[in-house]
Amino acid sequence: MTPHWDTLWTNVRLATMDPEIKLPFGTIERGALAIKGGCIAWVGPADDLPSVPATEVRDGGGGWLTPGLIDCHTHLVFAGNRCHEFELRQQGASYQQIAEQGGGIRATVEATRASSEEQLFQLAQPRLQAFLDEGVTSIEIKSGYGLEVDTELRMLQVARRLGREFPVTVHTSFLAAHALPPEFQGRADDYIGRVCGEMMDAVSAQELADSVDMFCEQIGFSLAQCERVIQSASRHGLPVRIHAEQLSNLRASHLAASHSALSVDHLEHLDESGVMALARAGTVATLLPGAFYFLRETRLPPIEQLRRHGVAMAVASDFNPGSSPQASLRLSMQMAANLFGLSAEEVLAGVTRHAARALGMASERGQLREGLLADLLLWQIDHPAELVWQFGVNRPHCIMKEGQDVSER
Amino acid sequence: MTPHWDTLWTNVRLATMDPEIKLPFGTIERGALAIKGGCIAWVGPADDLPSVPATEVRDGGGGWLTPGLIDCHTHLVFAGNRCHEFELRQQGASYQQIAEQGGGIRATVEATRASSEEQLFQLAQPRLQAFLDEGVTSIEIKSGYGLEVDTELRMLQVARRLGREFPVTVHTSFLAAHALPPEFQGRADDYIGRVCGEMMDAVSAQELADSVDMFCEQIGFSLAQCERVIQSASRHGLPVRIHAEQLSNLRASHLAASHSALSVDHLEHLDESGVMALARAGTVATLLPGAFYFLRETRLPPIEQLRRHGVAMAVASDFNPGSSPQASLRLSMQMAANLFGLSAEEVLAGVTRHAARALGMASERGQLREGLLADLLLWQIDHPAELVWQFGVNRPHCIMKEGQDVSER
Ligand SMILES: [Zn+2]
Ligand SMILES: [Zn+2]
Repeated sequence: MTPHWDTLWTNVRLATMDPEIKLPFGTIERGALAIKGGCIAWVGPADDLPSVPATEVRDGGGGWLTPGLIDCHTHLVFAGNRCHEFELRQQGASYQQIAEQGGGIRATVEATRASSEEQLFQLAQPRLQAFLDEGVTSIEIKSGYGLEVDTELRMLQVARRLGREFPVTVHTSFLAAHALPPEFQGRADDYIGRVCGEMMDAVSAQELADSVDMFCEQIGFSLAQCERVIQSASRHGLPVRIHAEQLSNLRASHLAASHSALSVDHLEHLDESGVMALARAGTVATLLPGAFYFLRETRLPPIEQLRRHGVAMAVASDFNPGSSPQASLRLSMQMAANLFGLSAEEVLAGVTRHAARALGMASERGQLREGLLADLLLWQIDHPAELVWQFGVNRPHCIMKEGQDVSER
Repeated sequence: MTPHWDTLWTNVRLATMDPEIKLPFGTIERGALAIKGGCIAWVGPADDLPSVPATEVRDGGGGWLTPGLIDCHTHLVFAGNRCHEFELRQQGASYQQIAEQGGGIRATVEATRASSEEQLFQLAQPRLQAFLDEGVTSIEIKSGYGLEVDTELRMLQVARRLGREFPVTVHTSFLAAHALPPEFQGRADDYIGRVCGEMMDAVSAQELADSVDMFCEQIGFSLAQCERVIQSASRHGLPVRIHAEQLSNLRASHLAASHSALSVDHLEHLDESGVMALARAGTVATLLPGAFYFLRETRLPPIEQLRRHGVAMAVASDFNPGSSPQASLRLSMQMAANLFGLSAEEVLAGVTRHAARALGMASERGQLREGLLADLLLWQIDHPAELVWQFGVNRPHCIMKEGQDVSER
């Protein structure tokens, strides 16, 4: 049987992000790309294009095709807002004072617990749409504002439903080890027991989580507690990721590396031995410049060390109501360049190839490469660096999710 | 003849931004607002609503009405992009080195000079649309990338055309005194002579400028040169504004105040005597946190002094291809709060009432007040502070420009 393509893109420049193409952005200047059955069936220079019939031929108008963007760290499902707390912070209130006035993560937990699945879904929709409009085709969504079994499950169910009802691949992370719920005050180990037992069992039984996340920090959970969570995840066959070294260095990256975690996230306080551990384990370092910006941090993650040791750096939004209330991966991309000093190419790799790896989907998405799923974007720009440096303009001209044009939704 | 309203908004909360209403945001919790002939005909508590028939009654669904947003400082019309320069900057290149490699403002001048009116218009459209989608109903647009008469006129013509073809009020500023064009190298006084003579005459004859702007800085023009521009503007009956005290303190704010300038903009190096001069003159201080962020400045404008002396603070995007490539007033609003420490109420006043004053249109726009033009926005939010603290979500639910619903464009 002769091959036949569903869609053929012509007159396009390709930022494949394929590391085997030894040009910046994995560029193919005069390129072509063919799709069949939702997958990339052929990609290369237009001059080498085999003569295969295609149901639909699309002229890219000389624009650039890139992989779909991947946001590998969000807390997109929540209720309530924390504006009051930000105003208190402006007036000089401390974290402690804000918490005492009912602010902080507890405010979000209270509002989320009080919300139905339908309410959480309705609240999440416009947030997700904001990401999709920017060209996001895969997104990670965490639980972690329930901190008890029912609400944690409800958050993950909402995340799954978003993935069914929108043209986006949703990767869910179970983050019950996010904060200590008020009812367990002074009994963190008991709470971790609950997380590793009843809660993990329920999440696993319903197949609601693609990975397990935790907040390893003095104001979160200890290294020993996180290790218990990792062991439970491992018993349930779930990969892990860790919010690590954001406010201090607890050596959570070493723990993550020793368990082959998918990624460690934040990393402002990561030291070189942690960097080397990540490099050895192949764990992705996920940078979250939006939280750095919003918390007005001054200590930068060790970018140069991560580079030198060859650690894959992902860039994500960390969208959440408290420390990164910016529903925009494109803004995080500009901040990764402007605040963290990443090159435009590092940033684009951070929201495609490396973000895919952080979500355990590197063999399916994140590059324009034969055999991968056809999640791709067409941009009417002169150079891929514009996607990083310019903000607020350059919406994708066409969005394809697994070969389907979903631009018009 | 009995009065008759065109549109009546009911079931709305009002953030009038009217300083005579002594509640934060000039709030009227259970409000109503009537429109006739494009103007606000009545505004107040729903309980006091007079019994007047209305052609159309709109239920606001309990949302908030605010004045339309006003961006009082942009360089929206230009050609080219400066991504290459940003990458050089990342690699540690100095401003001087970038300029020597053809970067900096000269790159934009070269590209803009080479572009037709139609090309400049096409490039500007999506940028303007990004602002309109956010709820901007009035915008200032500067020339300043021509630096010779034809291109300066062309930029202003494009700005005027944007105002005719989009539902937005465009205020144009003639900014030939932006940088020294290469052909006048070493002859800044001669160039200023050209600006004040031939160029100002042409701009004035064609009524292309609503105000005159200048860049008073060591790398721009001297105080004496700026004074010549102001005197020429004054002879042509045009009000002035100044890019002032951004990188150093040349006392441009004193100059601006002594000539009753509409606004001084940037102000990171403004000192208290300058603040007092602005207060006495009633000149608006326009804050540009987007440029502060993008240039990674650390010195903050003297916000507390501006507050203490009662200087009106506007907030604007400074959108431009070199130092603030973010086409978003909403992002500038969040940055004004997060980076400059403004309260949410100060920020909202800064993009409504005070921005209107910076554009000399305070008697027409910038508040929900009887007699003003009905530029207004409906938002489905719980509190106006959300418009400041949350970014990427909360698009306006309805946009009215002089009483016409323009949401669907
Ligand atoms: Zn997070
Ligand atoms: Zn400017």
